[in-house]
Amino acid sequence: MPNDIDNDKKYWVGFDLGGTKMLSTVYNKQFELCGKHRTKTKGHDGSKAGVNRMINTIRQSIVDADIAVKDISGIGIGCPGPLDLDRGILESAPNLGWTNVAIKDSLEDELNCGVHLMNDVDAGVYGEYRFGAGQNCRTIVGVFPGTGIGGGCVYDGKILRGAKSTCMEIGHMQVVPDGPLCGCGKRGCLEAVASRLVIASQAAAAAYRGQAPHLMQNQGTDMSRIRSGALKEAIHSGDAVIDQIVRNAARYIGIAVANIVHLLAPDKIILGGGMVEALPDLFVTEVKKIAVARVLPSFIDSFDVVAAELGDLASVLGAAAWAERSTDGSA
Amino acid sequence: MPNDIDNDKKYWVGFDLGGTKMLSTVYNKQFELCGKHRTKTKGHDGSKAGVNRMINTIRQSIVDADIAVKDISGIGIGCPGPLDLDRGILESAPNLGWTNVAIKDSLEDELNCGVHLMNDVDAGVYGEYRFGAGQNCRTIVGVFPGTGIGGGCVYDGKILRGAKSTCMEIGHMQVVPDGPLCGCGKRGCLEAVASRLVIASQAAAAAYRGQAPHLMQNQGTDMSRIRSGALKEAIHSGDAVIDQIVRNAARYIGIAVANIVHLLAPDKIILGGGMVEALPDLFVTEVKKIAVARVLPSFIDSFDVVAAELGDLASVLGAAAWAERSTDGSA
Repeated sequence: MPNDIDNDKKYWVGFDLGGTKMLSTVYNKQFELCGKHRTKTKGHDGSKAGVNRMINTIRQSIVDADIAVKDISGIGIGCPGPLDLDRGILESAPNLGWTNVAIKDSLEDELNCGVHLMNDVDAGVYGEYRFGAGQNCRTIVGVFPGTGIGGGCVYDGKILRGAKSTCMEIGHMQVVPDGPLCGCGKRGCLEAVASRLVIASQAAAAAYRGQAPHLMQNQGTDMSRIRSGALKEAIHSGDAVIDQIVRNAARYIGIAVANIVHLLAPDKIILGGGMVEALPDLFVTEVKKIAVARVLPSFIDSFDVVAAELGDLASVLGAAAWAERSTDGSA
Repeated sequence: MPNDIDNDKKYWVGFDLGGTKMLSTVYNKQFELCGKHRTKTKGHDGSKAGVNRMINTIRQSIVDADIAVKDISGIGIGCPGPLDLDRGILESAPNLGWTNVAIKDSLEDELNCGVHLMNDVDAGVYGEYRFGAGQNCRTIVGVFPGTGIGGGCVYDGKILRGAKSTCMEIGHMQVVPDGPLCGCGKRGCLEAVASRLVIASQAAAAAYRGQAPHLMQNQGTDMSRIRSGALKEAIHSGDAVIDQIVRNAARYIGIAVANIVHLLAPDKIILGGGMVEALPDLFVTEVKKIAVARVLPSFIDSFDVVAAELGDLASVLGAAAWAERSTDGSA
């Protein structure tokens, strides 16, 4: 049982380690935001400097909350993977150039409280489960199409995980046999036909062909400039082909979702990430339509497809709440 | 906490309700077989007569074990689905012509102990987890190709389930977009390209074309006569095309398994059922080869593919053991 003395002084840190920025937040036990601090990650400075920046960012967020380090009951860290969850080691983060970083041990030594490493997508899905679109569900699956396609599952209150590391690699489910080459080297992965990267490259080609005049005028044919906002703008300005490209991608996500419903029978599929935030109705409508058409009759009314509600805060909230659950012995 | 008085007198009934036969078994607390009884199901007599046959079959197995009904601590029933697991209702069994049968209530009224309904495939997978090929694993996934393709998952000691009913409908994962029509009405399901039914029909066509002389001689072109033993015999007699047909089916199972590994990161994939029992090496080799070739590098060494070990006893053992786990409060 948790110790109830000083229970009112319980604060939780939720931290998100991103490729360009890191964000530390402090929540009280009602999970109201009490403080935060954001810093550039600067992965190229190396992991030792990076871990020190993490510690300083956490300290700054604690100062911002007007409390002391000793008031912190636990820290949840959302990280890119792969991770060794039990030992709290970031095994490899190609974006940062870091390998085998003992984040848990380093932070626990400095900050004197339990540190819980978790996959950043899992953190976001858990945040939605506790405070967002997944509240009051038994099982939810999150699908976040971005540069890749991240996925996570909260099953009966717990984050679904592999023996040592994370799982729910939705982006690498094969949806098109012998389909387009994926960044992972395989062919036909969901990521290879439905990520924002793929949508942007198809949109750039459409612009080059003269089929998307609004997109051409505003972004040109450099796919790296075609982000979620640009896709939304092009669709709203009348570039019908962009609408078709995005819907086609959503259709593949719907195929993957139908397979996931057959396996895990979640109550809700939660779609999130920048692209879904820009075009929520399009994604929710298309994914749901395809998934409903492809599941067995007994599953048709068993699930819903909805948009995430918490945006960028999902992962820090989820990390903080998972630290609470892990500390109180129920994780 | 379970009551330890008379703990030595704990017996568990494991029951399997099949399309043609029902089997009741009695196990002591070390899960040694103490008694059993088998009866024809005779589904066409209706569900009321059927439930009475179930009760009588259980009573006969208790007599065979030389104990009394009061010595039974709990009963686990493996059933075809769909089921309402919490209420213990068999919602529909097309093979038997039964709908909405309150099995749990009827049996509890007669036999005065807890009755736990479960999907029959889940029962088999749980049996392998506790006593067979899945012992000492954290998470296993069972794949049983037969008339259809059944699946189940034990995750961290528990059977993975949906909100109300079962899940892990592996047979209806889509592996071939716009592929062959499945019995469920959709296209390209795993079942539509890899079940024993599909293999038998392809083998019959090969026999008709003159490509499988041994099969033609022994079974002819009636696919209903081409069962697992006939496939094995044809392959061993030199019908190379039958070997190719079965390997091609196994290849599709490998594709589905790779997707499942990406989602659930199991320690072991356990292949079972009559066809795998007849040709274990072929199935294990092909499924493993394809799955290993298709998963992300970080998953390659994380799982193994093996054959089931318990045959027909898996489901009754699993049902009895799940009754134990449910009764002792840990399910």
